[in-house]
Amino acid sequence: MIVEDLLSSTGKDLKASEIRELLKLTQDPDVISFAGGLPNPLTFPIPEVKEIIDSIIEERGKVMLQYGTTEGARSLRRVLLDRLSSKDGIRADMDNIMILSGSQQGLYLLGMIMLDPGDVIITEAPTYVGAITAFRPFRPTFVTVKMDDEGMDTHLLEETVKRLKAEGKRIKFIYSIPTFQNPAGITMSLERRKHLMEIAREHDLMVVEDNPYGDLRFSGEPVPHLKALDTDDRVLYFGTFSKILAPGFRIAFAVGNAEVMKKLVLGKQAVDLCTNSFGQHVAMEYIRRGYLDKHLPKIVEFYRRKRDIMLEAMEEHFPSEAMWTRPDGGMFLWVTLPEKINTKEMFIKAVERKVAYVHGAAFFPDGSGTNTMRINFTYPTDEQIVEGIKRLASVIKEELRS
Amino acid sequence: MIVEDLLSSTGKDLKASEIRELLKLTQDPDVISFAGGLPNPLTFPIPEVKEIIDSIIEERGKVMLQYGTTEGARSLRRVLLDRLSSKDGIRADMDNIMILSGSQQGLYLLGMIMLDPGDVIITEAPTYVGAITAFRPFRPTFVTVKMDDEGMDTHLLEETVKRLKAEGKRIKFIYSIPTFQNPAGITMSLERRKHLMEIAREHDLMVVEDNPYGDLRFSGEPVPHLKALDTDDRVLYFGTFSKILAPGFRIAFAVGNAEVMKKLVLGKQAVDLCTNSFGQHVAMEYIRRGYLDKHLPKIVEFYRRKRDIMLEAMEEHFPSEAMWTRPDGGMFLWVTLPEKINTKEMFIKAVERKVAYVHGAAFFPDGSGTNTMRINFTYPTDEQIVEGIKRLASVIKEELRS
Repeated sequence: MIVEDLLSSTGKDLKASEIRELLKLTQDPDVISFAGGLPNPLTFPIPEVKEIIDSIIEERGKVMLQYGTTEGARSLRRVLLDRLSSKDGIRADMDNIMILSGSQQGLYLLGMIMLDPGDVIITEAPTYVGAITAFRPFRPTFVTVKMDDEGMDTHLLEETVKRLKAEGKRIKFIYSIPTFQNPAGITMSLERRKHLMEIAREHDLMVVEDNPYGDLRFSGEPVPHLKALDTDDRVLYFGTFSKILAPGFRIAFAVGNAEVMKKLVLGKQAVDLCTNSFGQHVAMEYIRRGYLDKHLPKIVEFYRRKRDIMLEAMEEHFPSEAMWTRPDGGMFLWVTLPEKINTKEMFIKAVERKVAYVHGAAFFPDGSGTNTMRINFTYPTDEQIVEGIKRLASVIKEELRS
Repeated sequence: MIVEDLLSSTGKDLKASEIRELLKLTQDPDVISFAGGLPNPLTFPIPEVKEIIDSIIEERGKVMLQYGTTEGARSLRRVLLDRLSSKDGIRADMDNIMILSGSQQGLYLLGMIMLDPGDVIITEAPTYVGAITAFRPFRPTFVTVKMDDEGMDTHLLEETVKRLKAEGKRIKFIYSIPTFQNPAGITMSLERRKHLMEIAREHDLMVVEDNPYGDLRFSGEPVPHLKALDTDDRVLYFGTFSKILAPGFRIAFAVGNAEVMKKLVLGKQAVDLCTNSFGQHVAMEYIRRGYLDKHLPKIVEFYRRKRDIMLEAMEEHFPSEAMWTRPDGGMFLWVTLPEKINTKEMFIKAVERKVAYVHGAAFFPDGSGTNTMRINFTYPTDEQIVEGIKRLASVIKEELRS
């Protein structure tokens, strides 16, 4: 049986991601890794999770351990709708929300229901690598719009949309991570958000707002979500428990247009029937009992401290030719080096010096951004941050000299 | 924004399943439903689950609540490999096994990596409706082979394979639920299993063995799995915790060819990154501590009793024109009525009489089997089984007279 002969065109196209292959080099415990995208397990509310399970499993075990509906548990959706309304200014009804097995699933299902080969999607450059992985099996054309300190350059977005329309292209949606962007750590300004929504209305475009980090704000004033500025139900919003409770339950949610939601639910029926009920009930109680609101400031404080330690170390050790973002929240910052430096080539040298990052080109659908890198500050210890930044600085300085 | 205009061809094709629409009619609490496919929650080992979580969450919380690898937790895969080897005669290594978010996900991923439009898959008729849902987005051609009391008619299978090959068709795999089949409740005989494997070897075909119910044997002698008869790694085997622990964790697994496994893992990376770690650790401990082996006989006894009550009630009340299977295990039995009866049309009358089933045509990719129905015996109470069978018998008798 020759497996290659049995594969579909999609099966043939699926290749091990270059990042994952590179990350295998960082398994050495002496390597300080800024490459991952994991929440720090010290932020997991283990006592709260234990208490929740202990107190509900006997009474509710028959439901928590059973299949659930594809849309997700009504009780969790209800609690989320209340929170979205009170905290995020997002108003929606039960037929506008569904539970997902992680946001990644939402991105994949969106690709499944919307993307035919050649359809255009517009993303920020750089953008979330998992979104590229989720959309790619459907063979869309990625068109990117660059960012500056205020997020996606919406004037460029407008030009791009006009150009694509003039070329007769089908734009399926604009995909954005407006708050504490992964990988760039940038937050889109209110003015830009309004402009983006204006463009979407004028050109009748759908907008996908991916918001995994929105609750992790360390500094600066909150900016309204795109979904909160959405007057005519064109924003599909993804939220998740992975960064405010724990990723290990795989509980996320989508909020948006009821017709889109119906199709996503039908897609999910084919893909995995339903999200695990157990995790949904824990997540529901985590909000309902007020544990999220009590615990979130601790996560924020924990990560703020790490961001500050990293920024301080970078100020002290990085060469003046390097530039980096100063995120108000989230998990990542973004470093831009002089153009002559190729961060993918430099990666091997960095690993030899026992420090790792993700080279920036991985976040550009077109492979550009070869002089950039993503650095995570949530996972390493305080000491690892300082030592790792020192090591990385010396690798960069050496590269600049050569 | 007109959602219809944004949909992909797959998005447009996704339609609410007829079964689900019909099942909405059975929400009335007075309706006795034999339609569902749910394990009985009285079989859930709630005290064991509570004990496991209580005893491991403090020590292992940082892992149980974190992202896992796409392949699944090594500890769970190890424990499963040991069990497959000792109980099921299936020998495999770490690169032959992956964890899934339910078997449904395995079926979908298989479709994703193997099926291009028009590719042929061979299934039993009737077959699992979830498999039809999982494969359909990839637009394969379903070719069915009918069953008798010994399972799939393998002589017919052989003819079918020869015919398809002569026609130049690409057969991607044979999909079978050989043990306590859903929906028919039939178990394939050893002779047929051997014949199926011979055919697969001779024509170099891949075989997919879906085995959700294999551990739920009430009577008769165990028959080796197709995977246990597999001498050259052509069987892809799906197993699940949904029926022996609980569906609410969404933990299943695939065992097979390492190259196939690699592609399934890459597909899963796009689809949901990883299966929930929490459930994986509970499932692992459930086996490791011997709770599965202790608990399984209780589930089997509980379901055997229900099967016997149902068969007895059917003997007593069903008209002589009806025929049905007598399953040695699993969750379903299958009723065949005279051809003039259309069970889909009869369904409305049944619901008026406060009893429900699934009409058989739903399990035939070509919509045949209009005089058949699937009946579940695991979910209703003993009293509901007797009363429901009485009601169903009178609906059938009435239909026969009209």
